[in-house]
Amino acid sequence: MKTFGVALLGAGRIGQEHARNLAGIAGVRVVAVADPNLEAAERARVVARGERVCATPEEAIDDPAVDVVLVCTPTPTHAPLTERAARAGKAIFCEKPIALELPETLRVMRLVDELGVPFQIGFQRRFDPAFADAKRRLETGALGQLEQFRAVGRDPAPPPLEYLRISGGIFCDQAIHDIDIARFLIGDISEVHVWGAARVDERIAQIGDVDTATSLLRFENGALGVIETSRRAVYGYDVRSEVFGSKGKIVLDATPKTPLWQYGEGGVHSDHYHFFMDRFVDAYRLEIMAFFDALRAGTKPTPSTRDATESLRVALAMTRSVQEGRSVHLNEMTLEGAAS
Amino acid sequence: MKTFGVALLGAGRIGQEHARNLAGIAGVRVVAVADPNLEAAERARVVARGERVCATPEEAIDDPAVDVVLVCTPTPTHAPLTERAARAGKAIFCEKPIALELPETLRVMRLVDELGVPFQIGFQRRFDPAFADAKRRLETGALGQLEQFRAVGRDPAPPPLEYLRISGGIFCDQAIHDIDIARFLIGDISEVHVWGAARVDERIAQIGDVDTATSLLRFENGALGVIETSRRAVYGYDVRSEVFGSKGKIVLDATPKTPLWQYGEGGVHSDHYHFFMDRFVDAYRLEIMAFFDALRAGTKPTPSTRDATESLRVALAMTRSVQEGRSVHLNEMTLEGAAS
Amino acid sequence: MKTFGVALLGAGRIGQEHARNLAGIAGVRVVAVADPNLEAAERARVVARGERVCATPEEAIDDPAVDVVLVCTPTPTHAPLTERAARAGKAIFCEKPIALELPETLRVMRLVDELGVPFQIGFQRRFDPAFADAKRRLETGALGQLEQFRAVGRDPAPPPLEYLRISGGIFCDQAIHDIDIARFLIGDISEVHVWGAARVDERIAQIGDVDTATSLLRFENGALGVIETSRRAVYGYDVRSEVFGSKGKIVLDATPKTPLWQYGEGGVHSDHYHFFMDRFVDAYRLEIMAFFDALRAGTKPTPSTRDATESLRVALAMTRSVQEGRSVHLNEMTLEGAAS
Amino acid sequence: MKTFGVALLGAGRIGQEHARNLAGIAGVRVVAVADPNLEAAERARVVARGERVCATPEEAIDDPAVDVVLVCTPTPTHAPLTERAARAGKAIFCEKPIALELPETLRVMRLVDELGVPFQIGFQRRFDPAFADAKRRLETGALGQLEQFRAVGRDPAPPPLEYLRISGGIFCDQAIHDIDIARFLIGDISEVHVWGAARVDERIAQIGDVDTATSLLRFENGALGVIETSRRAVYGYDVRSEVFGSKGKIVLDATPKTPLWQYGEGGVHSDHYHFFMDRFVDAYRLEIMAFFDALRAGTKPTPSTRDATESLRVALAMTRSVQEGRSVHLNEMTLEGAAS
Repeated sequence: MKTFGVALLGAGRIGQEHARNLAGIAGVRVVAVADPNLEAAERARVVARGERVCATPEEAIDDPAVDVVLVCTPTPTHAPLTERAARAGKAIFCEKPIALELPETLRVMRLVDELGVPFQIGFQRRFDPAFADAKRRLETGALGQLEQFRAVGRDPAPPPLEYLRISGGIFCDQAIHDIDIARFLIGDISEVHVWGAARVDERIAQIGDVDTATSLLRFENGALGVIETSRRAVYGYDVRSEVFGSKGKIVLDATPKTPLWQYGEGGVHSDHYHFFMDRFVDAYRLEIMAFFDALRAGTKPTPSTRDATESLRVALAMTRSVQEGRSVHLNEMTLEGAAS
Repeated sequence: MKTFGVALLGAGRIGQEHARNLAGIAGVRVVAVADPNLEAAERARVVARGERVCATPEEAIDDPAVDVVLVCTPTPTHAPLTERAARAGKAIFCEKPIALELPETLRVMRLVDELGVPFQIGFQRRFDPAFADAKRRLETGALGQLEQFRAVGRDPAPPPLEYLRISGGIFCDQAIHDIDIARFLIGDISEVHVWGAARVDERIAQIGDVDTATSLLRFENGALGVIETSRRAVYGYDVRSEVFGSKGKIVLDATPKTPLWQYGEGGVHSDHYHFFMDRFVDAYRLEIMAFFDALRAGTKPTPSTRDATESLRVALAMTRSVQEGRSVHLNEMTLEGAAS
Repeated sequence: MKTFGVALLGAGRIGQEHARNLAGIAGVRVVAVADPNLEAAERARVVARGERVCATPEEAIDDPAVDVVLVCTPTPTHAPLTERAARAGKAIFCEKPIALELPETLRVMRLVDELGVPFQIGFQRRFDPAFADAKRRLETGALGQLEQFRAVGRDPAPPPLEYLRISGGIFCDQAIHDIDIARFLIGDISEVHVWGAARVDERIAQIGDVDTATSLLRFENGALGVIETSRRAVYGYDVRSEVFGSKGKIVLDATPKTPLWQYGEGGVHSDHYHFFMDRFVDAYRLEIMAFFDALRAGTKPTPSTRDATESLRVALAMTRSVQEGRSVHLNEMTLEGAAS
Repeated sequence: MKTFGVALLGAGRIGQEHARNLAGIAGVRVVAVADPNLEAAERARVVARGERVCATPEEAIDDPAVDVVLVCTPTPTHAPLTERAARAGKAIFCEKPIALELPETLRVMRLVDELGVPFQIGFQRRFDPAFADAKRRLETGALGQLEQFRAVGRDPAPPPLEYLRISGGIFCDQAIHDIDIARFLIGDISEVHVWGAARVDERIAQIGDVDTATSLLRFENGALGVIETSRRAVYGYDVRSEVFGSKGKIVLDATPKTPLWQYGEGGVHSDHYHFFMDRFVDAYRLEIMAFFDALRAGTKPTPSTRDATESLRVALAMTRSVQEGRSVHLNEMTLEGAAS
């Protein structure tokens, strides 16, 4: 079995998760873990059964023993590190987003395509067994013509204001996962109309963002959709989806986190997922396994450079819609339109 | 216990349902059942333990032994019969809608208010134990500030084209129940933006209507909402709702029609409600009981003349939004605006 | 349509329930309501739209306008009133049990059979839509060879000790409904082995009864079963069942009483049925409708005299098993064996 | 962080599962994988990131670099390998059962205790998040006095007859997991009464075993219980449990394997767990993590030598009950009684 030399860039929350999963994949040898926080890097290295830590991602990328680079660093570095890894001929897994602007995203994704290096963007929900199963069923035509789509994405609590300031806004930062699932299950989106407000924290309005939004989607195949987004759900992490078609519907609901129901004087009680890490623990493992499976099989990993670009394009259209109070066609979101 | 003399106008599907429920309410004496189809009238009379049948609703309204009139006749007769009953000083329960135009609806509802006769409009979902319980919980502030609302309303199959032609369109005919629930649970609506299409049957487009629609709602209290509507759900009658607030959410989902799960080689299977009659059988009974309870207690029945008017106003705004491809503010839907 | 003259004997809790349901059945004319508590009788009469009240059940039975007698009086009167009604040639619906002793039950049931009057015993669960649907599915062979049966029957709280003293014990009084469902779904029972204890209230031990029991059943067709019984479930009324066979299983579970789930900081919450009246409200209505349907069709009502007898035989075998600490074969429970 | 040198004995189905999980535990170094099937051993070695394979378990146990031994070999070798590892002073994780006879099990478990080596028996269900959560809740007294217990354990299909012949019978081989959960959640068992039959395959009767059994349990604390066992459930792997007490109940039910519900013309459909590997994938990972956590913390691992012994004692009592057609007290199952 071929062994892949891997560089893990970034040992934050998501880097640690990948470290754990890398250890469980036979044929993966973690050559280097890079993080300016060397203690975090060392922790990830031990978990990943890796070989060394280094303080800069560039050093890890350039290591000749490295075939594959996982970019799990802060967002502003995604584009330059992806570019450097691509130019060095390495296979790349990059957490979303590539960048918060469409031109930079397009530039780097095109470069990756031109250089022909394998690339996968970190939309892990596609690998959740329920979402993946829904996709397989839709591909068989089980629902007939698709008519309506719904996704709910609610986080337990807003991140700190300092993060929100640089997050790219609720659509690029949070709803982009729901946008990706919409594209994954239904297809490309042609138009959006979004209403939003700062209902959770008015300082979010002051930085020009919203924390609560309901978004209409029109898909190129004529289906209609809605995405409901909130920065705060006191009961936990609320991700659900529904696809409705001429032959039925598929509901991707959450079961309780634990299949335990307690009955007492007040009724029946069950628990709920608290955060994306516990809801999608399997998906994170499976997305990395799928990435190495594709590398091993020599097939194109997915979600692809186009998925990275198109989901951002929709997120930016949604941002514009809520800001300008009007419907936005995706064909407005050209390089020029987006840059304006 | 006071006994009410009741006239049941209309012995169609919904009239038969009310006949059955009237029989179960102590203190109700069905004096007359009116329907041009005398056989249907006689069937309802037997079920309702009523006294006589008559061919015209006017005859029943004018009977001095009649204190209360239930208007279950075809839509175009709702306004004139309500008017006649109101002028005759009878208490009135009228199936929705009063009329398909706002001016006529406003005129008759104002007349009813001026004459001071008790009036209830037939939005039965408010009396479904789940919806009623949700309302009680919201009134206690259990969800805090309300943020997002969702309603799904899907019928098993479109009615005949001849009916659709005179139905007033999908929003006035079908979605109006979801609109009423939105108003019941969240409050008044200030703006709508609707996308729709004829996906089920293209002849529906030819008569200027849609069969599939997803509608954005903005409420006066700042909450956002969505209503998903379809004329066809092959799995049955699909009515659900969700209210999301700062302290949690309430999901009004459907259980299986029967609490029976069959496990076999292919997995687990349960059934689904087939039509509004089986899903809302309790609600139909409870709405009529609540009406007579209010009459007996001398309190104002609800949903009221205002609920009849406002839900139609929203349905007409939704119709305009989908036709004109733009957001519509409810304050456009004045008598003049609506009449245009 | 033929009209049946009905005498309702007993205007307690269950009599009032039947009164309400009788009003909703076309072709039923409640001639008399009998109860020594005349106020209760009058209340039931009004609800049932009945004609007169009388203080003694005998007077009602003997009324020549009465074709049908509903026996809803206290248990010790079931056998004599059933006998009197049978000798008077009336059709009989009798609440369970006929009597607490097997000889008296057998005597009266044989008399009813010999006189050929229609008879139905009040095991309402058979008419619950879920249990009835399970029966239909089993009859089609959907589960193949039946292997295992489970029923749970737990009441919210024990009745008063004075009632328990004359109740016939937990098996004849409470578990008999689960026994009937076992016989309904699986077939006749050949042997039982029961363990029980007074866990809820030790005074129940002092009167020679138990309040908690788990019972093994062996069916004549070789299937095995278990019934779990408790006099106290703080969360409400807990009735469930499961049938397992060579081709799958059917689970008759409870949905929440109301299809409403509230999500809050502590998780997800739903409600539960509180008592048999709310869980089986439809079943009570449907059993009486089925009784009159059978009368009208001239078919034998069911559950039958044999069902009344056999369920008691099993309940008495269970009582003996727990008292004597041994397995009891049903063929021990002959008239002679039972009388000992 | 201390590193443990680990020997994995046995590279069959369960050995491969542990190999995968060992790779994900930081501080674990798999020194040797032993299996006479060297190809399987090599596969497990790669997955576990191990160092070498060897053909005999003894060689692996005796390796001085080995601190910890995982016994995943066929049942007849469990006792001798555990003994050898204990005498060599190694920490031991052993799949159930130690042996199929009580004397041998007692002898080896006592030896382990005397030698004081850390020991854990492979009852993985205790580590399933739902079962573990139930245990925590029970320890807080959330259910009050425990009254009734139920466990269902049904396998999808019987193993081959050759395996059944040496399996020790359905209670020692299959129901022992349910017995362990009964002991885990409720406490020690004092008496059993079991009815069983060969309903699935009559050849199972010929080898003196049953394939379908319903077992009454009496616990030392007075609670009653039932275990339902079957070798065949066509819908998959059916493991459920319920604990009922004076303050409520806890239901450990299965959610669908995937939180996806498909609605179509025939109703609503979801999937089911197929086998214990998919239902308990997390439990297998967590039990091994807990074992190493205990080693690292210097605490006694659990389930313990006593749990290994006591569950077998109950399984043998159940075997005797079904064979002799009588209730069996656990105090009959002494070394002498068991050996007879």
